[in-house]
Amino acid sequence: TAPGYAPSLRSRLPLVAFLLETIFILLFVFFVKIEQNVYIASNGNAFLSTEFQDIHVMIFMGFGFLATFLLRYGFSGSGFNVLLAAMAIQWAVLMNGFLLPQRHHKREIHISMKSMIEAELCAASALVAMGAVHGKTNPVQLLLMALVEVTGFVFSMVETFLDKYIMLLHVFGALFGVMVSWVLYREGIEPVHEKEKTDRKTGLFAMFGTLFLWMFWPSFNSAMVRDHKWERGLKLTVIYGTYLSLAVSVVMAMSVSMLTSAKGKMNMVHLQSSTLSGGVAIGVAMTAVHTPWIAMTIGFCASLLSALGFCYMKNHMLFAFECHDTCSVLNVHAVPGILGWFALLFLRLASDESTIAVQFAVYHICVLLITACMSLVMGTATGPTTLIQSH
Amino acid sequence: TAPGYAPSLRSRLPLVAFLLETIFILLFVFFVKIEQNVYIASNGNAFLSTEFQDIHVMIFMGFGFLATFLLRYGFSGSGFNVLLAAMAIQWAVLMNGFLLPQRHHKREIHISMKSMIEAELCAASALVAMGAVHGKTNPVQLLLMALVEVTGFVFSMVETFLDKYIMLLHVFGALFGVMVSWVLYREGIEPVHEKEKTDRKTGLFAMFGTLFLWMFWPSFNSAMVRDHKWERGLKLTVIYGTYLSLAVSVVMAMSVSMLTSAKGKMNMVHLQSSTLSGGVAIGVAMTAVHTPWIAMTIGFCASLLSALGFCYMKNHMLFAFECHDTCSVLNVHAVPGILGWFALLFLRLASDESTIAVQFAVYHICVLLITACMSLVMGTATGPTTLIQSH
Amino acid sequence: TAPGYAPSLRSRLPLVAFLLETIFILLFVFFVKIEQNVYIASNGNAFLSTEFQDIHVMIFMGFGFLATFLLRYGFSGSGFNVLLAAMAIQWAVLMNGFLLPQRHHKREIHISMKSMIEAELCAASALVAMGAVHGKTNPVQLLLMALVEVTGFVFSMVETFLDKYIMLLHVFGALFGVMVSWVLYREGIEPVHEKEKTDRKTGLFAMFGTLFLWMFWPSFNSAMVRDHKWERGLKLTVIYGTYLSLAVSVVMAMSVSMLTSAKGKMNMVHLQSSTLSGGVAIGVAMTAVHTPWIAMTIGFCASLLSALGFCYMKNHMLFAFECHDTCSVLNVHAVPGILGWFALLFLRLASDESTIAVQFAVYHICVLLITACMSLVMGTATGPTTLIQSH
Repeated sequence: TAPGYAPSLRSRLPLVAFLLETIFILLFVFFVKIEQNVYIASNGNAFLSTEFQDIHVMIFMGFGFLATFLLRYGFSGSGFNVLLAAMAIQWAVLMNGFLLPQRHHKREIHISMKSMIEAELCAASALVAMGAVHGKTNPVQLLLMALVEVTGFVFSMVETFLDKYIMLLHVFGALFGVMVSWVLYREGIEPVHEKEKTDRKTGLFAMFGTLFLWMFWPSFNSAMVRDHKWERGLKLTVIYGTYLSLAVSVVMAMSVSMLTSAKGKMNMVHLQSSTLSGGVAIGVAMTAVHTPWIAMTIGFCASLLSALGFCYMKNHMLFAFECHDTCSVLNVHAVPGILGWFALLFLRLASDESTIAVQFAVYHICVLLITACMSLVMGTATGPTTLIQSH
Repeated sequence: TAPGYAPSLRSRLPLVAFLLETIFILLFVFFVKIEQNVYIASNGNAFLSTEFQDIHVMIFMGFGFLATFLLRYGFSGSGFNVLLAAMAIQWAVLMNGFLLPQRHHKREIHISMKSMIEAELCAASALVAMGAVHGKTNPVQLLLMALVEVTGFVFSMVETFLDKYIMLLHVFGALFGVMVSWVLYREGIEPVHEKEKTDRKTGLFAMFGTLFLWMFWPSFNSAMVRDHKWERGLKLTVIYGTYLSLAVSVVMAMSVSMLTSAKGKMNMVHLQSSTLSGGVAIGVAMTAVHTPWIAMTIGFCASLLSALGFCYMKNHMLFAFECHDTCSVLNVHAVPGILGWFALLFLRLASDESTIAVQFAVYHICVLLITACMSLVMGTATGPTTLIQSH
Repeated sequence: TAPGYAPSLRSRLPLVAFLLETIFILLFVFFVKIEQNVYIASNGNAFLSTEFQDIHVMIFMGFGFLATFLLRYGFSGSGFNVLLAAMAIQWAVLMNGFLLPQRHHKREIHISMKSMIEAELCAASALVAMGAVHGKTNPVQLLLMALVEVTGFVFSMVETFLDKYIMLLHVFGALFGVMVSWVLYREGIEPVHEKEKTDRKTGLFAMFGTLFLWMFWPSFNSAMVRDHKWERGLKLTVIYGTYLSLAVSVVMAMSVSMLTSAKGKMNMVHLQSSTLSGGVAIGVAMTAVHTPWIAMTIGFCASLLSALGFCYMKNHMLFAFECHDTCSVLNVHAVPGILGWFALLFLRLASDESTIAVQFAVYHICVLLITACMSLVMGTATGPTTLIQSH
């Protein structure tokens, strides 16, 4: 049977959601407008709209069904994912306007295809963080955690204008989630390991969620890339690179999964995690990848690291650091993300002149450090706060 | 065990389908041509084609899996949905040509992206109507009902050229379906309540159908909107508005569902119905909605009305009016549709000059009245007719 | 219980996959580049990208879930489908470059939207072949078979530049698969009929895979069609034709399925197979189909042939020729493909002048004969080879 939260907690969720939604609408009344006089057929807007639709499917369908391999994450789990994502997107639209004021003149936030895509990517970051605490938190905690995570992520991206480094969302989300999980675990909440049991029957649903993420990942990566005049075809290069990286990633994930299994069977949980690591890594490195084989090598390494990490690091973390990470987001999002970050640094250093290269390296390292510190600090702070809220 | 129709009824379905299909092909031989010399890359045709694909997915995947929460609507239910939709689309292409002759010169019906999208929307109207009678009719009745519904809907839209008011398809379909259900119920057919039982196991499939409708609804609403020279960006405005309205709608639907439930759990059936009401309401009102908060408020109200109606009105209707509405289409499609209609009226009256406004209001009220009367009359007439056919 | 392969076979798969993947990456290092200076917003590239995404969904989601009606094709089946498809695509990119050198100057293979789409179509051909041997082969055999099939198909298309006749992939794949199955059967491997049992519970998953193939088939057919200056609108004509053919096909498949069933029920397996035959047939004939009714008639005939073949030919083949075809690919892909080929021949002969017509007919017949012979010979040769590999 389910562990069961106190009825008071459950009954508080709809009221909190109702209240927040009313506040969101009031904020939208005063601050948000729709961008005017933009024509869908002009200037690649039609394609941006298709990419946005793909990302929308990934957020609601992909993430919603990804975790269905857990026995206790079924209908209400995927339903709850929709609720959280819908609120996170609205909050992200507001945060992008408030925290990045240089982009929005006269205190007005303008809704455009670009701002909608950014909001969905911020929500994705929150959903990644959620993967680490599945089954250990109550719904109200999750909702507050999602909103704090989005705020923190946008804030950590302030100095980069959210544009160039937005794919660090994987690193931020995963570290944030792991820290929240670590704090909650140490605060004495029993890890409900029963919730971690996998369910063979819903395996096909989880496959389904994974495939939706896997298939549309090229849109996820390429959506924020623009074809500049001095670099035509960058967007297509990113799309091809992501496809190839993911194709290699899926082959490696399955091979490692079968090799490390006693009976030589595919491990459902490995598969659903490591197949995606190639997309994460290439997403961070993509603007510097111009040949297919580099993309494939990045996918190869990311998938290998992620699958091995899954087999050997997860239990180690649990015992050595008392840190429990339900969906293993550290191996799926943080490690490949940092790998991609190193690939980007290396590729830029190899191609640029020395003075620009040093400048880039310093900036690049700062961005990662700020992102990582912010996520660790905010994650640690969020754990107890949400606990207080829920008592 | 299943209630079981007489074998004669079952065996008649393939023959009826075969016969109708042959007639359709013969009518296509004489009347239907493909529009020539239209280039896919030009003038937004590529985007229209993407929107058409999205609507196609909604009709066959979304509606097909939406009703799988019913215990007795599984494989054959979704299969049958495909059969009905495929026939309704072909019939709608023919009806659009025969009943709206001003659009087709020289007795030729031209197939274009626009005519295909219109045909899919007409089929959607028939599928809405079907939601009211699930489990109470035999397949042959459903097929005839679908074709009559499409004819009636196109006919009721004649004076508006099917363009501007096509989103009243929700109101027409829902009222039509409820009337058929009312007539059949009063004619003495036992409501097979066993068929209304929900099935937890197929809950994820129903979630899946709902999400497909929910995610692609912006394409559903925006497909018939064109970017005129004097109103550039209207299409994008509709897309953003629908996204926001649906996001609010899903939050409210879940909140109300949890509040009204004794145990504070999400009610699967509420969820699958009320989440979509925001899309219905904004669909009818969309051309007058130019700010995000109005879209969100419409989604808020539609979802609240729909969810409350679901909780309190459905049983009342059953006992007071002896009218049984399996998927509660009245609350999901008719009520939000009429709400959207009022919003459109109000927003236009607030923005236009007085003389045009009065003119618009009269026209607007006439369209709703004609649509409602047509659907009520035709629904009432269709019930007994299909009964005769099936005995 | 499962028949179970020797552990040695299972354990060999990850090593083979790992080795092949490394070889692929090395080949990519030396031979493959990304096409430069192509802009996504120009010249219909955005639409091609959408079509590619649709085909990607068909390959990984559609084919992956299509065979889930088999009791023993569940999670690992769909997972394995992803592995095979991902490797086949990489191999097809290489083969298209090596075997069609006239298209790639200076020994460089350029990755473009077109070459990616071609690679996916070649992978589709391999997945069709696999349908015939499901449940009778071990994973290593399947992997080798997929690579040989892709090589053979590209080779058989050399003289047509892979462009105009690429839709013969259905005929090639099906005949290849059936020959492999025939050889393996005669070599004494017991047909594991237990694996052919259908599973009602996963029926909705299979429906789901079928619908994904069915809904996106227009993109599958139209992706390689270009709008030439002298034939504007050909691409749209193909899209409309495919939609209509599939709509008729689904109606006929259900009718025949219900007629031939004793209880008048829809047969899940019929449905999942014959609904797609209309898309196969119109795909081969499409460039000559310019009116809706011809497309519909082709769908009508293909579906009728396929459904009747399913009912009466499958068992006959098993007893008369000792040939066992698990997913009945002969009826779903080969027969409708050849029907479409005849339709194309007939339509061209009816419209062209006599001298060009004769020239076309000779060429047309040669292409089919070469494709068929190649597939039969290579299929026969592949069976024993993979057997040796696996002992």
